[in-house]
Amino acid sequence: MSEQIISSTVKVAYQGERGAFSEAASHRLLGQNIRAVAHRTFEEMFDSVTRRAADCAVVPIENSLAGSVHKNYDLMLEHDLTIIAEADMRIVHNLIAPAGVEMSEVRRVYSHPVALAQCERFLRDHPQMEASPAYDTAGSVKMVVERRRTDEAAIAGRTAATVYGARLLAEGIEDDSLNFTRFLLICAPDRTPVIEASIKTAAASAERKTSIVFRSANSPGALFRAIAAFALRDINLTKIESRPIQGRPWEYSFYLDLIGDRTDLKVERALAHLSEMTESIRVLGSYSSAGALN
Amino acid sequence: MSEQIISSTVKVAYQGERGAFSEAASHRLLGQNIRAVAHRTFEEMFDSVTRRAADCAVVPIENSLAGSVHKNYDLMLEHDLTIIAEADMRIVHNLIAPAGVEMSEVRRVYSHPVALAQCERFLRDHPQMEASPAYDTAGSVKMVVERRRTDEAAIAGRTAATVYGARLLAEGIEDDSLNFTRFLLICAPDRTPVIEASIKTAAASAERKTSIVFRSANSPGALFRAIAAFALRDINLTKIESRPIQGRPWEYSFYLDLIGDRTDLKVERALAHLSEMTESIRVLGSYSSAGALN
Repeated sequence: MSEQIISSTVKVAYQGERGAFSEAASHRLLGQNIRAVAHRTFEEMFDSVTRRAADCAVVPIENSLAGSVHKNYDLMLEHDLTIIAEADMRIVHNLIAPAGVEMSEVRRVYSHPVALAQCERFLRDHPQMEASPAYDTAGSVKMVVERRRTDEAAIAGRTAATVYGARLLAEGIEDDSLNFTRFLLICAPDRTPVIEASIKTAAASAERKTSIVFRSANSPGALFRAIAAFALRDINLTKIESRPIQGRPWEYSFYLDLIGDRTDLKVERALAHLSEMTESIRVLGSYSSAGALN
Repeated sequence: MSEQIISSTVKVAYQGERGAFSEAASHRLLGQNIRAVAHRTFEEMFDSVTRRAADCAVVPIENSLAGSVHKNYDLMLEHDLTIIAEADMRIVHNLIAPAGVEMSEVRRVYSHPVALAQCERFLRDHPQMEASPAYDTAGSVKMVVERRRTDEAAIAGRTAATVYGARLLAEGIEDDSLNFTRFLLICAPDRTPVIEASIKTAAASAERKTSIVFRSANSPGALFRAIAAFALRDINLTKIESRPIQGRPWEYSFYLDLIGDRTDLKVERALAHLSEMTESIRVLGSYSSAGALN
């Protein structure tokens, strides 16, 4: 009986330790009734979904301060998976310590160097705390909880505190509150209906979006002609980014997000038009924003 | 006398520890006869140039795996500095240890988590080496050299080995050799002629490039009309990237690089044309690729 219940629970792959921001994004997209499975690397996470060891994966694709995660675009192109939802998560950093530890006792703070750098002002205002680099944010919480020292804390998302039964000593300690990461929910194309049924729909937006990647040689006006396919049909673009193809000077990949579903007639026609202008084109998926609860 | 010699040496600000990739990029752009000055953060580096404490700065702006460094675009917009050269550096990681240490003795390897992740295959093939996160690549070399243990090494660029008198135990250990970072050389506009005279010109390219940032509301076709300014004049684009403006839905910043100097008549006209279509536009500089020696 319980076997059956487990097997009907959606199994979501993410990268990072338990309590990572990606795990929080998984719950935001799919609710609490899922089995979120930690993976050490993005490659292993994509492989899990391709091998059907996981039903879907939650993938960070861009951050408002650090830019697009090209590596995950590359993995999207290597795997035959499709995007079925997206969610924007605010990245909030917190000072987290084992239960019983007081703020005034903390002398050493562990976290990923990027998170430490994003909390520079807080650390400068608390010079008694020495910042110490670690592999990741959630993993630092795990470590300080296991060590149970009264003078150590970690910087991580709130989920990590919950997961490891630790205490929030200070919340929202990042310098720049405009720190967002966009996560994509991906799965094998034939699993789309099943996973889509589990998505927590955002109240705000029923609008569909489509993500594509295309390649083009860069003659003057090549991009202009390519995006004419959308402009001539009044299709709105929400992202465009060129990326040089290494070792092939003057050739580029373009990432493009547009408003509309790939099955909308005008989007379908625009994609057919675009494919006349480009060397290759891949539709990564059509999807809505999800997970309004937060 | 020696005072005079020092004051005529170009003072170049960079972010990171001595021996960082940014320091290597400084030498690639300006040769060995400079004074490269380490800064803890990008903010401090930009401030140094604005306050005239440094003559110029070398800024990483995008990486072929990790994407654009939005933070440095933001700092460019906050400061009245101009780009006067660019250089593409291949990021090569090496295993580096104090002199006398043999590969077989190494049990612990320090580096920035991103560098450790980029050398995953090497670390998997050497399971006796435990990877340990640290603040930065060059700083890890500094640390293992200071500690002088015979079982510790670091992963960093070759410059760090030279700077700290350490030994290269293994070269080019990164998984993906298509790992490039593009660096910009920036200075105060009125210092341009002086600094330009110090740039090591690339043999290959005398071609000029211009970088701009503009803002636009995203009505359908807005980007199409904007880049028409270049397409209609046969001006080639080498980079385009949109970035959502947080807190202002449907408004975007665009980063755009084009071939040509801002003083070329057709570029000048295209920029005037573009400014009719956009809310704001800032020319970050016109420059050539430099530093062919490497």
